[in-house]
Amino acid sequence: MEIDLNADVGEGFGAWSMGDDAGLLRVVTSANVACGFHAGDPSVIDRTVGLAVRACVAVGAHPSHFDLRGFGRRNMVVDPAEAEADVLYQVGSVAGFARAHGSRLTHVKPHGALYNQAAADEALAAAVARGVARFDSGLVLVGLASSATLRRAAESQGLRFAGEAFADRRYEPDGTLVPRSAEGAVIVDPAQAALQAVRLAEKHEVLTRGGAVVSLRAETLCVHGDTPGAPALARAVRDALETAGIAVRALGP
Amino acid sequence: MEIDLNADVGEGFGAWSMGDDAGLLRVVTSANVACGFHAGDPSVIDRTVGLAVRACVAVGAHPSHFDLRGFGRRNMVVDPAEAEADVLYQVGSVAGFARAHGSRLTHVKPHGALYNQAAADEALAAAVARGVARFDSGLVLVGLASSATLRRAAESQGLRFAGEAFADRRYEPDGTLVPRSAEGAVIVDPAQAALQAVRLAEKHEVLTRGGAVVSLRAETLCVHGDTPGAPALARAVRDALETAGIAVRALGP
Amino acid sequence: MEIDLNADVGEGFGAWSMGDDAGLLRVVTSANVACGFHAGDPSVIDRTVGLAVRACVAVGAHPSHFDLRGFGRRNMVVDPAEAEADVLYQVGSVAGFARAHGSRLTHVKPHGALYNQAAADEALAAAVARGVARFDSGLVLVGLASSATLRRAAESQGLRFAGEAFADRRYEPDGTLVPRSAEGAVIVDPAQAALQAVRLAEKHEVLTRGGAVVSLRAETLCVHGDTPGAPALARAVRDALETAGIAVRALGP
Amino acid sequence: MEIDLNADVGEGFGAWSMGDDAGLLRVVTSANVACGFHAGDPSVIDRTVGLAVRACVAVGAHPSHFDLRGFGRRNMVVDPAEAEADVLYQVGSVAGFARAHGSRLTHVKPHGALYNQAAADEALAAAVARGVARFDSGLVLVGLASSATLRRAAESQGLRFAGEAFADRRYEPDGTLVPRSAEGAVIVDPAQAALQAVRLAEKHEVLTRGGAVVSLRAETLCVHGDTPGAPALARAVRDALETAGIAVRALGP
Repeated sequence: MEIDLNADVGEGFGAWSMGDDAGLLRVVTSANVACGFHAGDPSVIDRTVGLAVRACVAVGAHPSHFDLRGFGRRNMVVDPAEAEADVLYQVGSVAGFARAHGSRLTHVKPHGALYNQAAADEALAAAVARGVARFDSGLVLVGLASSATLRRAAESQGLRFAGEAFADRRYEPDGTLVPRSAEGAVIVDPAQAALQAVRLAEKHEVLTRGGAVVSLRAETLCVHGDTPGAPALARAVRDALETAGIAVRALGP
Repeated sequence: MEIDLNADVGEGFGAWSMGDDAGLLRVVTSANVACGFHAGDPSVIDRTVGLAVRACVAVGAHPSHFDLRGFGRRNMVVDPAEAEADVLYQVGSVAGFARAHGSRLTHVKPHGALYNQAAADEALAAAVARGVARFDSGLVLVGLASSATLRRAAESQGLRFAGEAFADRRYEPDGTLVPRSAEGAVIVDPAQAALQAVRLAEKHEVLTRGGAVVSLRAETLCVHGDTPGAPALARAVRDALETAGIAVRALGP
Repeated sequence: MEIDLNADVGEGFGAWSMGDDAGLLRVVTSANVACGFHAGDPSVIDRTVGLAVRACVAVGAHPSHFDLRGFGRRNMVVDPAEAEADVLYQVGSVAGFARAHGSRLTHVKPHGALYNQAAADEALAAAVARGVARFDSGLVLVGLASSATLRRAAESQGLRFAGEAFADRRYEPDGTLVPRSAEGAVIVDPAQAALQAVRLAEKHEVLTRGGAVVSLRAETLCVHGDTPGAPALARAVRDALETAGIAVRALGP
Repeated sequence: MEIDLNADVGEGFGAWSMGDDAGLLRVVTSANVACGFHAGDPSVIDRTVGLAVRACVAVGAHPSHFDLRGFGRRNMVVDPAEAEADVLYQVGSVAGFARAHGSRLTHVKPHGALYNQAAADEALAAAVARGVARFDSGLVLVGLASSATLRRAAESQGLRFAGEAFADRRYEPDGTLVPRSAEGAVIVDPAQAALQAVRLAEKHEVLTRGGAVVSLRAETLCVHGDTPGAPALARAVRDALETAGIAVRALGP
């Protein structure tokens, strides 16, 4: 048994920083690097990709709607051709930094509103998949594990799809996430996050808010980086997975 | 004898357009595609690179300071590491579109203030050259023909440098351009531009504002695209070059 | 009988221009000036407000979502408090230019997606109205004539609401506009636009796409500026209104 | 004897925050609110101006070059007319929030590169002063105490000028600041900052890096907000001033 552990990194911009990237990159196996559209100016990307490569963490692009003001979290109605070009642009730019650091891109995980909209909207899912595949059909497209929409879009473009689950987010009975605005949406206790991670990796299931257990098959687990104790939580998750005999290993060949 | 004929293209943004790219791309041999920092959103880049590839025109990146408001024409004091990352980011993004259209990037030509500052400032020239070379040292770096600074920077990074001269701009006795604000700075008469082009390609010299002739060795000639009659002027230049027995051919191997 | 004739102006940005503002400002009685969020940098605003004031045209703000890339035409899900602050920011900035030119703001007309969303979404309509009223409750809020939602929001903030109809757009039977993507959505023939304008002003009704006539009461008529012949069409509309004995006069006290 | 104590606030943007504004606003008498060009989106401005007004702190605008990426700290060559429009735009937008919170703007202090460039460049100083005066000639323009250039520009536009000194920055013998990059440029010890503040307020002089004492007449003292202990340092400065019998009071009539 094996699973990937990923985190969103490089989400500062100019004078502003966010999260403890260096701490997280000592723990996770895959990094999703912000590409400049919701966060991450070129200097931040350069530094972040360098950190990831030196830590032997797989480098992925984390493209977003063009929305610095809203941190890419605002759903918006975009023309699919525009979303496709946006994804291709962002993937190319981060791939350039991977190459400059002697590495290469392994995956692409859409960010925020683009992630959520592409999980549900067929035309947008197809646009995202095309944007990735036009750059390199050897890339893995990471998306919401329960989204058949994005999985189908990826596969019809010849891309491998990797379903993602969250170690530190509470789930609804239908396999979607409890919205951030709801109480208890985020799991802050490292022990609980670790338990949920092992259950997801071992049994492909998750305990939902209501107490029911639902099936959820994920190939990568996300730990969020925008909280002070993020590296410690990630470490607890990783230790628990390895103690349970699950190999923590990046996606990719 | 041979020379390259280049034009800056893809300089619209969102709802705004600029120049007759389709017309120019029927005439020139190299296209410098705006990368999003002074102009050129991803949809514009996608369309422009597609046009260039179908017209068998060599695709280059045209990186700029991050300055949409000033169209990249405002000199600014930037940290060299920041400029290096900016160039790498922009080169990567346009290279991704070239790849998506079944082609590859051949050259990089800095835009506006970055072009002028890098011609004179050693630290910035080195930063630009590093940004390009870190992506691909097989790329040609295009810059002001009279700039020894950028040439040295390119060569010390293992890049081929191609000096650029302007068919449609008037020159000063020291080989620099008459500033745009001065009368007669821009040559609008196609016949005169054609004459200047042939003289540059054949004799490696240019008639200056004062009437003197100075030596100027260029491997590529630029025709500006932001005037209504640009394609016609470019056509006159190309026809005159070919009539004079000079092969008009893209840079690159 | 009287009616206002308005146009959206100042929709260039940096090196890019749009429309013939000087031509339109010789014909209309109210100008909606882009505020920098979808178009209109400060230099453009300064020039445009100056033109409007010298032409004795009433100056209004034309606030938008923060969306330069999409020209403010992309619907997006925004927090109402954020939309309120965005409107207040933009109204304040254009009001400053009006004051600097010895005039004052008379009205506010939301742009593009914000205009359409606020016509239908109660929370957003309230946010827009609050943003305007917090600056100055003496301002007129201009919106889609058939939107009871925005009218109610304006009035509950103590603002005067002015319903807007379009001289050069085709209508659906329910009083909404035929989408721009549909054939015949835009009326380009000056004579037809003039006819529709007079009918709206005189009889408060409009001929719809299907041939039916629906009631529509508007206090201001818009002519679009982003077409080459816009000033001529606006002139035809104004002449027809005046010939029909309808006074063309700005909103306001 | 009296002096004003000011701080730069509202320098977050979107998802990013910076400094402890609430803490600082309990101590200072004047707040310089970022206007959106280097930091401060409309929601941040709304919240910050509200905090300042409730704390009875004088509200000022803190305009910058349009440079989110560089936090307004990158010197750039801008056309004076453009800088003038930029200042007017930003002053108008923050003034709108002051008005919405039942208050009014008292002063304008340029930020970062604009502050430094306007202290030395006559054309830019004149542009900044015109931008302020065109909005309201009753505003106080705050700038580097040792800059005769900006003082003259302010006065020739009929503006009151207030010279600013820094409680927590080390000075050079010529009255300019030791560059941030040099060791010891920033005074982090509250006791030392308090001493420097009292000396500036009482004796109009400052101890320089070399040990000499130079004359420096300031009407307002700045404490920086972008360090963790900023409110404590500001409190030490204020207490020391008041203990020395110096009234700490906002600029303005």
